[in-house]
Amino acid sequence: MIILGVDPGTIVTGYGIIEYTNNKFRRISHGVIKLSSTKSLSEKIEVIYAELDKLLKIYKPDEFAIETAFYGKNVQSVMKIGYARGVSLLAAIHNKVPASEYSPREVKKAVVGKGAASKQQVNYMVMTILNSKKIKFKPDESDALAIALCHAFRMKAPTYKKSKSWKEFIEANPNRVIK
Amino acid sequence: MIILGVDPGTIVTGYGIIEYTNNKFRRISHGVIKLSSTKSLSEKIEVIYAELDKLLKIYKPDEFAIETAFYGKNVQSVMKIGYARGVSLLAAIHNKVPASEYSPREVKKAVVGKGAASKQQVNYMVMTILNSKKIKFKPDESDALAIALCHAFRMKAPTYKKSKSWKEFIEANPNRVIK
Repeated sequence: MIILGVDPGTIVTGYGIIEYTNNKFRRISHGVIKLSSTKSLSEKIEVIYAELDKLLKIYKPDEFAIETAFYGKNVQSVMKIGYARGVSLLAAIHNKVPASEYSPREVKKAVVGKGAASKQQVNYMVMTILNSKKIKFKPDESDALAIALCHAFRMKAPTYKKSKSWKEFIEANPNRVIK
Repeated sequence: MIILGVDPGTIVTGYGIIEYTNNKFRRISHGVIKLSSTKSLSEKIEVIYAELDKLLKIYKPDEFAIETAFYGKNVQSVMKIGYARGVSLLAAIHNKVPASEYSPREVKKAVVGKGAASKQQVNYMVMTILNSKKIKFKPDESDALAIALCHAFRMKAPTYKKSKSWKEFIEANPNRVIK
């Protein structure tokens, strides 16, 4: 399974593409879409959509994962990141790739084991899991790879809803019953 | 000149199409894109883009105007409106229609004459300017038509930068010199 992780921003949008097969993770590609500060917001979203569309067509990922929920205090920045996320999601939708969203906390918890991990800890774990200690990832690249890894972990071990009784649990998870 | 005004939202996105020729305004079309509350955010942005793309292809507007800057307190809502605005702008960009953004204050000031006008006042002025008192506009439709009208007024009377001297003013506005 190929997963494209994206960390959308209006200054830099990071992306990371990983393969997850037989419980093994492999880095396929990573990079940043630089959005020069001179460009208007319209141009920025056009570039984000066009570049992600290109990546989706080249690497044909099976899954698309994006970071959601930014708890910034500046409403204007939140709105701008909303623009970037909206068009990123749309690129996935137009390419018929299922899209998932994860909060920064979920990503950190999945990759490092704790929701309040630092950027350095995330970067270190991404390098370790992808066995690529010789590559120096930029923060946005490492974040995007972490988002892709978070999605892989989630696919591997879906979280089960808490059930009130065994009967309810069995109904909700028929595949976990040994026949 | 045909102008498409859009008031993007994740529950309802309003649109209004007007024609502005020889100092006269005419309503061409108006309506809402209803985004049922059961749909996911991904589906909502897909529908907003697809519907606006359709309107852009049918009415071929010369200009596209959208409301910007939402001063809400809930960061999650601001982010979602960002998604809706981002894909709305992208629809205009993909159809090569120049897009402009106006704040709610600018729209109210342009249409009613004061930045703090109520929704009812905006609605009344939209009906009056478009000479369509027999049509009952929904609030989102009337807002979208107001955005289109605001853009028409702006095109009609571009705001001049304040100049420090007559020399600077003449240089900045050569078309205003009577020869």
